[in-house]
Amino acid sequence: MSSKWQSIYDCKAYAILKRLAATPFDLSAEKALTPERLQKFFCKGSAFDLLYGCQRVTTEVLDALQSLADECDLSRQFGKMRAGDVMNRLENFPSEERQVLHTSCRDIFSRNPICEPATNQAKAELVKLKAFLEELDKGTICNARGQSYNTLVHIGIGGSDLGPRAIYEALLPYRRKDRVVHFIANVDPDDSAAVLENVDLSRTLVLVVSKSGTTLETLSNETLVRTALEDAGLDPARHCLSVTGESSPMDNPNHYLRSFYLYDYIGGRFSSTSMVGAVMLGFALGYEQVLEFLQGAASLDEASTEKDIRSNPALLLALLGVWNHTFLGMSTVAILPYSQALHRFPAHLQQCDMESNGKSVQRNGEPLQIKSGPIIWGEPGTNGQHAFYQLLHQGTEDVAVEFIGFRKSQREKDIQLKGSSSQQKLIANLLAQSMAFAVGKNDNNPNNRFPGNKANTILMGDKLTPESMGALLALYEAKIVFQGFCWNVNSFDQEGVQLGKVLAGEILSAMDEKDDGKTLAKAFLTTAGIK
Amino acid sequence: MSSKWQSIYDCKAYAILKRLAATPFDLSAEKALTPERLQKFFCKGSAFDLLYGCQRVTTEVLDALQSLADECDLSRQFGKMRAGDVMNRLENFPSEERQVLHTSCRDIFSRNPICEPATNQAKAELVKLKAFLEELDKGTICNARGQSYNTLVHIGIGGSDLGPRAIYEALLPYRRKDRVVHFIANVDPDDSAAVLENVDLSRTLVLVVSKSGTTLETLSNETLVRTALEDAGLDPARHCLSVTGESSPMDNPNHYLRSFYLYDYIGGRFSSTSMVGAVMLGFALGYEQVLEFLQGAASLDEASTEKDIRSNPALLLALLGVWNHTFLGMSTVAILPYSQALHRFPAHLQQCDMESNGKSVQRNGEPLQIKSGPIIWGEPGTNGQHAFYQLLHQGTEDVAVEFIGFRKSQREKDIQLKGSSSQQKLIANLLAQSMAFAVGKNDNNPNNRFPGNKANTILMGDKLTPESMGALLALYEAKIVFQGFCWNVNSFDQEGVQLGKVLAGEILSAMDEKDDGKTLAKAFLTTAGIK
Repeated sequence: MSSKWQSIYDCKAYAILKRLAATPFDLSAEKALTPERLQKFFCKGSAFDLLYGCQRVTTEVLDALQSLADECDLSRQFGKMRAGDVMNRLENFPSEERQVLHTSCRDIFSRNPICEPATNQAKAELVKLKAFLEELDKGTICNARGQSYNTLVHIGIGGSDLGPRAIYEALLPYRRKDRVVHFIANVDPDDSAAVLENVDLSRTLVLVVSKSGTTLETLSNETLVRTALEDAGLDPARHCLSVTGESSPMDNPNHYLRSFYLYDYIGGRFSSTSMVGAVMLGFALGYEQVLEFLQGAASLDEASTEKDIRSNPALLLALLGVWNHTFLGMSTVAILPYSQALHRFPAHLQQCDMESNGKSVQRNGEPLQIKSGPIIWGEPGTNGQHAFYQLLHQGTEDVAVEFIGFRKSQREKDIQLKGSSSQQKLIANLLAQSMAFAVGKNDNNPNNRFPGNKANTILMGDKLTPESMGALLALYEAKIVFQGFCWNVNSFDQEGVQLGKVLAGEILSAMDEKDDGKTLAKAFLTTAGIK
Repeated sequence: MSSKWQSIYDCKAYAILKRLAATPFDLSAEKALTPERLQKFFCKGSAFDLLYGCQRVTTEVLDALQSLADECDLSRQFGKMRAGDVMNRLENFPSEERQVLHTSCRDIFSRNPICEPATNQAKAELVKLKAFLEELDKGTICNARGQSYNTLVHIGIGGSDLGPRAIYEALLPYRRKDRVVHFIANVDPDDSAAVLENVDLSRTLVLVVSKSGTTLETLSNETLVRTALEDAGLDPARHCLSVTGESSPMDNPNHYLRSFYLYDYIGGRFSSTSMVGAVMLGFALGYEQVLEFLQGAASLDEASTEKDIRSNPALLLALLGVWNHTFLGMSTVAILPYSQALHRFPAHLQQCDMESNGKSVQRNGEPLQIKSGPIIWGEPGTNGQHAFYQLLHQGTEDVAVEFIGFRKSQREKDIQLKGSSSQQKLIANLLAQSMAFAVGKNDNNPNNRFPGNKANTILMGDKLTPESMGALLALYEAKIVFQGFCWNVNSFDQEGVQLGKVLAGEILSAMDEKDDGKTLAKAFLTTAGIK
């Protein structure tokens, strides 16, 4: 039986929220931001608390958002997704018709996994990974000279790159001191060249990640690296690994030392907890750390099944996002982690969110009459405070802000200066910005005025570890999925990538044929040399 | 005599453009994108050509944009800025009242510099830098053991960080093989800890960059690094350099081996061609490469004085931006470099643009009745094609796209695969995306439809070198300045950073005093531990 797929504007709660949005709560009003409000609009989570007192909401708005969640059947759809329903589909039109089971990759700790076949496949890959990592440690897998591998070059693009890269950067303090990872994604030949300049290929494993085994950028980069291996007198089959679909062109023991599998029910942008992230992470941190990471994600998935929006940070974050975007009209969301380690996490979310919900067709094939997903962008604070925050405070674009912070630093190496540690300064700045956005400030000089009333939330965790990283990742995955259900779009396909691929192929053909280039605006004026 | 500072909506051209914007050119119409159009809407520049056939403009629109440029006196204001007029000011209200002379840092090749006093100051710093770099090479500056310095840790934030970092990353292939640079910006103690784990402090120079000499994040990080030097038994005064204002607290020979000066007429976000960028670049690449970089910027400044918008890429890019933002209502600009080396350049532009033009008060102190600067974001292609391009193609937000590409790769290390090199694939993808955004595609399946008609430009250069990097930087600096003039905002102050600073100080005090925290919503509920 299918879930109830309903247009958001057919919900009763939609009309109520529309009405409430005409006069939203004004954060900049006198005494709007009381301790009582901050305390009340606080959602305690297992890994992350959500502070939403600086959102433009009232109890009435929250009640209406709860009704919206109930009418859209968000929790039930989330449950069906985890259980293996075919959620990647359109009604009435041809579509991918796939299950969406990234959650199964981490549902490995329960005696009764929700979708046992998928979890069993995930477990089988983890067994392979554990054995492989043990062989690396024992030295039974080594280079031709008997030396251990100390470097991994991870080759992938989009979903096979951004998540793993963000997570690796986030967890650097937990890295084994004898191992390092580099990433190659771009078809730009300078991307691979820059990495190859800095590695000793003889001690390098090359992990090629492509579900289809046919991604052109990834194949080009793999070929570049294989050529470099051969030029260095090394046997690529001894150095190369793959993460790919079973029986894809990259599932070939003649070419790869090991192949780890990724199944068609896991979309690229949701694949970080599959072998796409786990092989790299296992090499860099160790197998136990992979399990901690998965445990964090599993716990968050479980917590996200809660129907009460006030007790479910992922669901609440999703609905506050819908409030800001659909009802208050904010086009963009700035993700601002007060953690340098998360410097690539906004880029991962940009992909995961915008590729999922950047759609304009509902799941019944009808055009969506309102806006779907927002633009996601962001950089770490405090850096951003000295950069683009000027526009957030005093500019003319209204941006929804999502702060992320941690009470402790990762390494806890700190100093006191002017009465506070750097970590205290960091957190004080996060809270100060949240308040400054909300309350604003008047001044006789118009140039020194801050209008305030800028909506923001804070996700606050204790410390960034493999486990909390897994939780943070799963929290945002769930947020994105909830919003997609709400807007009634299929968050799991990406037809928007097709046209560019086709045209790139045609331009390459025209370049290749050296014809007079009548096609494609003269192959874009002889490939933009013009004339 | 002051320039003519006029509200954009008081210009005659404003009304004309408003009228034209009601029925803008439709790029997705049958045969809209002809070779003739692409050839005609092409602006030949010295370092970068601007291809704007995929903008929603006609000859009539361009003529009106030319009139707008003329009425707003853009070229003359640019000239006055370069000549040393006090352009950083408000009329009728207290303001910074400063000159804006970042261009003087590169106006060092002409016999008749436009603002001789500033250029003489820039030249004096370059002489100091040259001598310093020679001493490093000769070994007369070395560590206590007589070893050369092979590492530079650059400490700064915002304008003292993002530009230098983006440029360093862009020019890595030109780096001296015996030298490397690391950056620390964030007050997050994990930022400095991550860098300190990876350097041999005994062979490291520490460059601290702060115009005022009092930036809290930078001082904290300097203290952390000085402590680490002392802990390693090293003398900080032998390892530390500063870039700062003359006679600031950081202009102190007892604490710094050398101090290079930055003058108050150079704003942080425009400071990359001053000593803020030059010291790092001179260390990493060499003095001659610094001159090439400055030469590229100088030539572009000169080219940007041209009044004919069709012959001035920076001015034309600025006006096309005004057309998209002010008249067609696009809230954001995506900067998409098809060059992995430029991966941090969008973050620099995000700062430079949003901190300059994220204002809502005109230069006469009156509120701006329309929107000022847009939100700037972006990541390199082709990576983005596998990420957020889905939303650009099929989502519901209309984004103005600025592509940047180069005909050649930096290292020219490449391979052929399936009939083309990686560089050819890269450029073919850039052009294909440009066309796909413009023309779109119909389909019986609504999920496979592309509406098209998405405005985009291409900045196309030959190769990313120190010289073309300087040109690209100066081109965008000029674009931002032209747009600020157009919207009649003061692009050179940043009052929006003040409120957060004050509140952070108050929260730190409340934490410090361990009082009952009645202030500041109980110091944001005891610094977000809540309760």
